[in-house]
Amino acid sequence: MVGGGEGAFIGAVHRRALRLDGTCTLVCGAFSSDPSAAREFGANLGVDAARAYGSWQEMLEIEASLPDSERMEAVSVVTPNHLHLPIATAALHAGFHVVSDKPATISLSEARELATAVEKSGRCYVLTHTYLGYPMVREARRLVQEGVLGRVRKVYVEYTQGWLVDRLEKENKQAAWRVDPARSGPSGCMGDIGSHAHNITEFITGARMETVRAWLQCVVEGRALDDDGAVFFKMSNGATGVLTASQICAGEENFLAIRVYGEKAGLIWNQEEPNTLMIKYADGQQKRVRAGVNMPLGATALDVSRTPSGHPEGYLGAFSTLYTDFAKMVRNNMHASPGPDEIGYTPGIDAALRGMAFIEAVVDSSNADGEWRDVVNVR
Amino acid sequence: MVGGGEGAFIGAVHRRALRLDGTCTLVCGAFSSDPSAAREFGANLGVDAARAYGSWQEMLEIEASLPDSERMEAVSVVTPNHLHLPIATAALHAGFHVVSDKPATISLSEARELATAVEKSGRCYVLTHTYLGYPMVREARRLVQEGVLGRVRKVYVEYTQGWLVDRLEKENKQAAWRVDPARSGPSGCMGDIGSHAHNITEFITGARMETVRAWLQCVVEGRALDDDGAVFFKMSNGATGVLTASQICAGEENFLAIRVYGEKAGLIWNQEEPNTLMIKYADGQQKRVRAGVNMPLGATALDVSRTPSGHPEGYLGAFSTLYTDFAKMVRNNMHASPGPDEIGYTPGIDAALRGMAFIEAVVDSSNADGEWRDVVNVR
Amino acid sequence: MVGGGEGAFIGAVHRRALRLDGTCTLVCGAFSSDPSAAREFGANLGVDAARAYGSWQEMLEIEASLPDSERMEAVSVVTPNHLHLPIATAALHAGFHVVSDKPATISLSEARELATAVEKSGRCYVLTHTYLGYPMVREARRLVQEGVLGRVRKVYVEYTQGWLVDRLEKENKQAAWRVDPARSGPSGCMGDIGSHAHNITEFITGARMETVRAWLQCVVEGRALDDDGAVFFKMSNGATGVLTASQICAGEENFLAIRVYGEKAGLIWNQEEPNTLMIKYADGQQKRVRAGVNMPLGATALDVSRTPSGHPEGYLGAFSTLYTDFAKMVRNNMHASPGPDEIGYTPGIDAALRGMAFIEAVVDSSNADGEWRDVVNVR
Amino acid sequence: MVGGGEGAFIGAVHRRALRLDGTCTLVCGAFSSDPSAAREFGANLGVDAARAYGSWQEMLEIEASLPDSERMEAVSVVTPNHLHLPIATAALHAGFHVVSDKPATISLSEARELATAVEKSGRCYVLTHTYLGYPMVREARRLVQEGVLGRVRKVYVEYTQGWLVDRLEKENKQAAWRVDPARSGPSGCMGDIGSHAHNITEFITGARMETVRAWLQCVVEGRALDDDGAVFFKMSNGATGVLTASQICAGEENFLAIRVYGEKAGLIWNQEEPNTLMIKYADGQQKRVRAGVNMPLGATALDVSRTPSGHPEGYLGAFSTLYTDFAKMVRNNMHASPGPDEIGYTPGIDAALRGMAFIEAVVDSSNADGEWRDVVNVR
Repeated sequence: MVGGGEGAFIGAVHRRALRLDGTCTLVCGAFSSDPSAAREFGANLGVDAARAYGSWQEMLEIEASLPDSERMEAVSVVTPNHLHLPIATAALHAGFHVVSDKPATISLSEARELATAVEKSGRCYVLTHTYLGYPMVREARRLVQEGVLGRVRKVYVEYTQGWLVDRLEKENKQAAWRVDPARSGPSGCMGDIGSHAHNITEFITGARMETVRAWLQCVVEGRALDDDGAVFFKMSNGATGVLTASQICAGEENFLAIRVYGEKAGLIWNQEEPNTLMIKYADGQQKRVRAGVNMPLGATALDVSRTPSGHPEGYLGAFSTLYTDFAKMVRNNMHASPGPDEIGYTPGIDAALRGMAFIEAVVDSSNADGEWRDVVNVR
Repeated sequence: MVGGGEGAFIGAVHRRALRLDGTCTLVCGAFSSDPSAAREFGANLGVDAARAYGSWQEMLEIEASLPDSERMEAVSVVTPNHLHLPIATAALHAGFHVVSDKPATISLSEARELATAVEKSGRCYVLTHTYLGYPMVREARRLVQEGVLGRVRKVYVEYTQGWLVDRLEKENKQAAWRVDPARSGPSGCMGDIGSHAHNITEFITGARMETVRAWLQCVVEGRALDDDGAVFFKMSNGATGVLTASQICAGEENFLAIRVYGEKAGLIWNQEEPNTLMIKYADGQQKRVRAGVNMPLGATALDVSRTPSGHPEGYLGAFSTLYTDFAKMVRNNMHASPGPDEIGYTPGIDAALRGMAFIEAVVDSSNADGEWRDVVNVR
Repeated sequence: MVGGGEGAFIGAVHRRALRLDGTCTLVCGAFSSDPSAAREFGANLGVDAARAYGSWQEMLEIEASLPDSERMEAVSVVTPNHLHLPIATAALHAGFHVVSDKPATISLSEARELATAVEKSGRCYVLTHTYLGYPMVREARRLVQEGVLGRVRKVYVEYTQGWLVDRLEKENKQAAWRVDPARSGPSGCMGDIGSHAHNITEFITGARMETVRAWLQCVVEGRALDDDGAVFFKMSNGATGVLTASQICAGEENFLAIRVYGEKAGLIWNQEEPNTLMIKYADGQQKRVRAGVNMPLGATALDVSRTPSGHPEGYLGAFSTLYTDFAKMVRNNMHASPGPDEIGYTPGIDAALRGMAFIEAVVDSSNADGEWRDVVNVR
Repeated sequence: MVGGGEGAFIGAVHRRALRLDGTCTLVCGAFSSDPSAAREFGANLGVDAARAYGSWQEMLEIEASLPDSERMEAVSVVTPNHLHLPIATAALHAGFHVVSDKPATISLSEARELATAVEKSGRCYVLTHTYLGYPMVREARRLVQEGVLGRVRKVYVEYTQGWLVDRLEKENKQAAWRVDPARSGPSGCMGDIGSHAHNITEFITGARMETVRAWLQCVVEGRALDDDGAVFFKMSNGATGVLTASQICAGEENFLAIRVYGEKAGLIWNQEEPNTLMIKYADGQQKRVRAGVNMPLGATALDVSRTPSGHPEGYLGAFSTLYTDFAKMVRNNMHASPGPDEIGYTPGIDAALRGMAFIEAVVDSSNADGEWRDVVNVR
C-alpha cells in the first residue's frame, strides 16, 4: 500500500476492505511521504518492520528484488490524485498488479499513459469505484440488461455531500488536497464525487455518456476548485439525463442516488440505504428488491453477497468486493475484469479512461459557459 | 364553477376542496362546453337545476342579474388553460371574484391582461398552486425566513410523473388538451408541473428565479409539446439550482420534491409524504418536523392545520386551504393574499405573472439551445 | 349533530368528514350540554339559528315535528361515551338514522340495548371506526380474502400515542372525560384506541378475536383508568396475535399499525403513512401497493379513492368515506352496511357489539390477573 | 475456531468479523465434527494444514503443547448450542480465551458451570450478541443513561423472521439443529432470537427483565420446538414491556426492533436500518440520530464506528466490533468487558447467565399456561 497514513481517510477503508473476505493480505507499505512517519505508521499497523518502507520507490525496489514467494503481489495506491500515475506506472513496470483509488489520474492524457502502461505490463488494474461493489447496483445493471425497464429514456443521478460547506481545507488534510488543483486535478467536486455518479450511470445503463453541458461552481468563497456542479447529458442509447454533484449541501452525508426510467418501468437506488432497490412499473405495480444471499436475485448480485436478507451489508462490504474481484483476476490471470461483457463488473482501465474523459469534458463545457461538449470515446 | 364536467380530473378536486372547511358552497356552474351535458352534469351534482347553466357566458349574465343576496360571489375556473383568460376576465368584469386553476393563462401577455383586469375590478383572484396549501410548505418558508438554514445557496427541485409514458393523449381527455399547444400553451410538462416546481421554490426561499438555462424535450414520439425538461437557474438571493420536471418517468406518481441548502442547514420536503419536513444541520444533527395542530410549528403552518399529528392530511386538505384563504380574502375585502409579506401565502396574480414569465423564459431558452434567459421581473 | 362544541376535537372532524364528498349536509345541532353555548356555537357554524338547539332532547322533539322534506334525516353523536346510548336510542326511536362515534356505548349490555333499538327502528346505524375508511385497509382485507397470504397465522396490531404521558386530564377537556370511568366506560386506553386495533384486526382478517389474555396498566400515577395495555389473543381462524395499545408512549403521534402473516406472505400497514401497503412474500419478493384511483387495486379500494396515486389522501378522507357509505345506506334503505359479506365494510351495530364485548373481556381478564377470557360472540 | 464448516451460516460470519479490523487472525480450527471434512475445509480456508484439526479435542491438545509464541490465543465456538459448554470449558481449562456464539449453553445450570470455569480460568469470555456491536445501540444506551428519555416506563421489543415458515428443517442443516431440543436447548425461536431481544433490552435500558409471562407456540405442525412467542415483562427499573419473537412471519427478514419510552421521550431503532436512531420527544420534536465517525455522538458509539456518516456500516461491522472488543480485553488482560459499568458493552459471562435465566423463565411460564415467573437474578 502506498499512502493511507496518519490523518488519511481512505487508507483505513482500503485496509479493512482487503481483509474482510480473506482474499488479500497487507504485507508491506509506504504509508506516508515522510519516511520516518511511514515506517512508524507501518509498524503500528503490524506490518513486518522491514517492510514498512520509507518511500514507495524504496518499496518497489526492495520488493521487486525479493523471491517470488516472498514479495508482494500487488500495490494499492491510496495517495492524493496527482501521485496515482507515477506510482501506478512504476508498480506496473516493476511487475506488480495495481489497485488504485479514483480518479485514476489528474488528466485524460495521464490516463492514456496509464492505459499504455497497463497494457504493456500485462498486469491487472482495478480502480476503486466502490459503489459498483454493491449487490443491488449489480442487480440494477442486470435488470436493465434483461429489459425489465424497456428502452431506457431518462436518468437522474446525484451525489450530494455537506462536508465542504465551510472552508474546511484550512484545517483538514483530506479537504486540503481535494481542493488543490495541483494535487486533485482540474476539478474538485466533479472529480471527487461527480466521477462516481458518472461511473455508476454508465455501469447500470450499460451505455456511454456521450455529450455533456456542465455548470461548475465554486460556492464557498476563496476555494480554488469547484465544490458544486450540474450536468445535462446525452447517452449512447438515446437516453438523456441530469447529473448533480455538490459538496456544499449542508447536512447531507454521502447521498449518491440514481433513478433510471425506461418505457416500462423505473428503478431507484440510493447508497445510504444500499440493500433496497425499488422498481416502479408504468402500470402502478411497485417491487422492492432486497439484498441477501437467500433472495431471488441474479447471479451477479448473489456472487457478491455475504449475508442473508435483513443482515445489512454496507460500504465496507462493497469496497471489499472490489478487492476480492481483484484477487480473482490476479489468481486467474484475467487482465480484464471478471464480468461477462464490454464494461465489466469491476472497474478497470476502461473506467479510468472514461472517468477522466468525463471530467475533462465537464470542465471544458463549464469553462465555455455551458456549451455542449463530447466526452472523448476512449474505446 | 366553469368546467370540471364528465371526464375531468381537477373539477372534482376543486369541488371537494371548496367543501371541506365549510367556507365555500357550490351554488351554480357551467360544467361543460356542451350545453346539455353541462346542464345534466350540474343536476347530477345537486346544483339547483335553474343554475346548472349551458355556458359560462350564460352563467355570468344570469348570475350578475340576480339580487346580491342570491347571486354567486365567485367563479372557479377549471377549464383547459386557453380558456382561463377569457372566463376570468369576463367574471372579474361582471364583478365576481375568481379562483383559477394554473397556469393562469397561456402566455405572459395574457397574464398581464389578466393582471390589469384584476386590478381594475378590485376583486380577489387566487391561482390554485395547490402545494402552497400544505402546512409543511408554509413551515419551510418560515424556517428559511427565520434564518434556520443561514444564507440559501442551493436548491434542487423536481416534479416527476409517469402518466404520459405512452401516447395516452390518443384516448385520454386529460392528456389530450395538455399536449395540445392551442389549449395548453407553449409548454406541456414545464407548464403543467414545472410551473409548480417554480412556484414552490420562490415561495419557500422568498426569492425570485431570475435567470434560466433550459432543456425541454419531447421524449414520446409524435407528441406536440415537451413531456420532459430540466432547468439550471440563478436566484435573486444569489442561490443557484436545478429544476427538473418530467411526465415520462415510468412508475412515478406525483413526485414533487424540494431541497434547499443554506450555509448552516438543509431542508427536504416531498409532496408524497407531505406531513414530514427534514432539517439536516451542518453539524450532523437532524430534525424531523411533523405536521399537526399540536406540534411545535409556526403560526403560518398551524393556521392551516386541521388534525393532530399522526392523523395525516393530504392533497385535498392543501387544496382546501387555498379555498379557505380565498374565502377569507373575499370576506375581509382583501385584494391581496392574507400573508404578511411580499409574496404572500396564497398564490394570486403575482404568482400568475411570475409563473407565465418563467414558462416563457424556459421555452425561449430551450429554443435557443440552452442560452441563459432572464425571467421577466413582473413586479 | 349532538356534541362537538367548543374545545371538542372529534366534532370538527365529523363536520369536515360529512362535507368532503358532498353527500351529507349539517342542518342542525345541539353542540354543547350548556344550552346557550350550544346555540351560540351553532350560530357560529352557520347553522340556521332556529335549528341551533339548546339540548339534544329539544333537537329531537322539534325536528321530529317538522315535515319530512324539512327535517334532518340523521343524527351524528359525537359526545363523550356515556351519552352515546341515550342519544342514539332516542334518535332511532324518533325515526332518525344514527352515526355514532366509538366506542358505541360504555358496556356490552348497553350495546345490546342499542342493537335492539336499531333493529326495532329499522334505521341505519354507523359507528365511526375511521380507519376502515382507508382504501388500503379495504385492499388489505381483499388480499387476505383472496388468499394472497395463504392461511393467516399471526397478527401483530398496535396503537400507540403519547398525548397522555402526563396528567393532561387536569387541564384538557378531551383528556378529562377519557380517563373518567363515569363518562368513558370501564377502560381508558383500551376502550379509546385498543378498540380500533381490535376492529381493524377483525376487519382485515375476516375472523373474530375469540379469546384474550390482557394486561392493563395505569402508568401515570393518579389516573383512574388504564393508559396502557397489551393483549394476547386467539382468533376464530386459528391465528394468534398480540395487540398493544398505549397512550403514554412519549413522542408517538397516532401510530396504529397492523401486520398479518400467513403461510405464503405477510402484509404490513400503518396509519401514519396510509397510502402504502407492503406485501412480503415467503420467497423474498416484496410488493409495495399504493393507493390511487389509477392503481391496480380491487374495487373495494377504488370505490373509496378520490385522487390519483401520489396525491395523498389522509385521515379526513377515511372519515369522510364512512359518512358517504352511511349516505348510501340511507338513500338505498340498506339497514346493513353496503359491503358484500358478513362483517361488511362500514362498521355498524355488529362492530358496536363486538367492540364492547372485546373491551369487557379485556378488562375482565386483566382484573383476573391475566386469565384467558372469551370474547362473547355476539352474533 | 470450532465448527463453522460446510453448510454452516454463522462460521463464515465469524471469520469475516474477526478479520475486518485486523485485530484477530484465524490460525487454526476444527471446522466439522467429521475429521476429514474438518481438515479439508480448514485447508480450503487457507489455514496451515497442520493446524486444520480433525476434532476440537485434538486442537486443544496440540495447540496447548505449542510454545507460547506459536499457539493460538483464543477459541471461537460456533457449533450448535449443545456443544458450547463442553468446548468452552475445555478451552478455558486449557488456558485459552473464548468467544462463543449464543445462546451460551442449553440450560441455566450449564451456564453456571460455564461461569465457574471462566472465573477459575482467569480467561476472557465473550458471547456474540452481535447487535450490541452496533454504534447506534451503544448510543441508545448512553442516551437512556444520560436521562434523555427521563424515567423509562415502557419497552416494545421484537424479533421477527420468516425463514421457518415451512418445515425447512427437513432439508436445511441450519434449521435442523435449531428445532432439535437435544442440540438447541429447551426453546427454539425464543432461544435463538428472543434471547437477542432480551439482551438488547437489558443493554439499552441498563435494567433487568425481572418477571415474565410467556406464550410460546409451535405454529408449523410437526416441529419439536417453539417457532413463535410473546412475553409480557416487568423490569427492575419499574418499566414494563412486551417482547415478541417469531420465525414464521412469512416474508420478514431479520427484523429486530426496539422502542423505549420514558417520561420525556421515546427512542426507536431497528436492525435492518441500523445507522439511524429516532428520538421522539413528548413536546413533538423529533431527532434523527445518524451513525458516523464525524457525527455528534457519544464516545461509546464513536469508538466502534469506522466510516463517516452516509457510508453505511452493517451486520458484519457490528459483529467485528465484538471481536475487536475481545482482542482489547485479551491484550489488556481485562477479564470483564471494556465497558465502564455493571453490564458493560461487550456481552460476556453475565449476559450468558442472564440469557439462559430468561430462556428458562420463559419456557417455564409458558408451560404453566402463562403464569408469571421470575427470571433468576444471577448476580
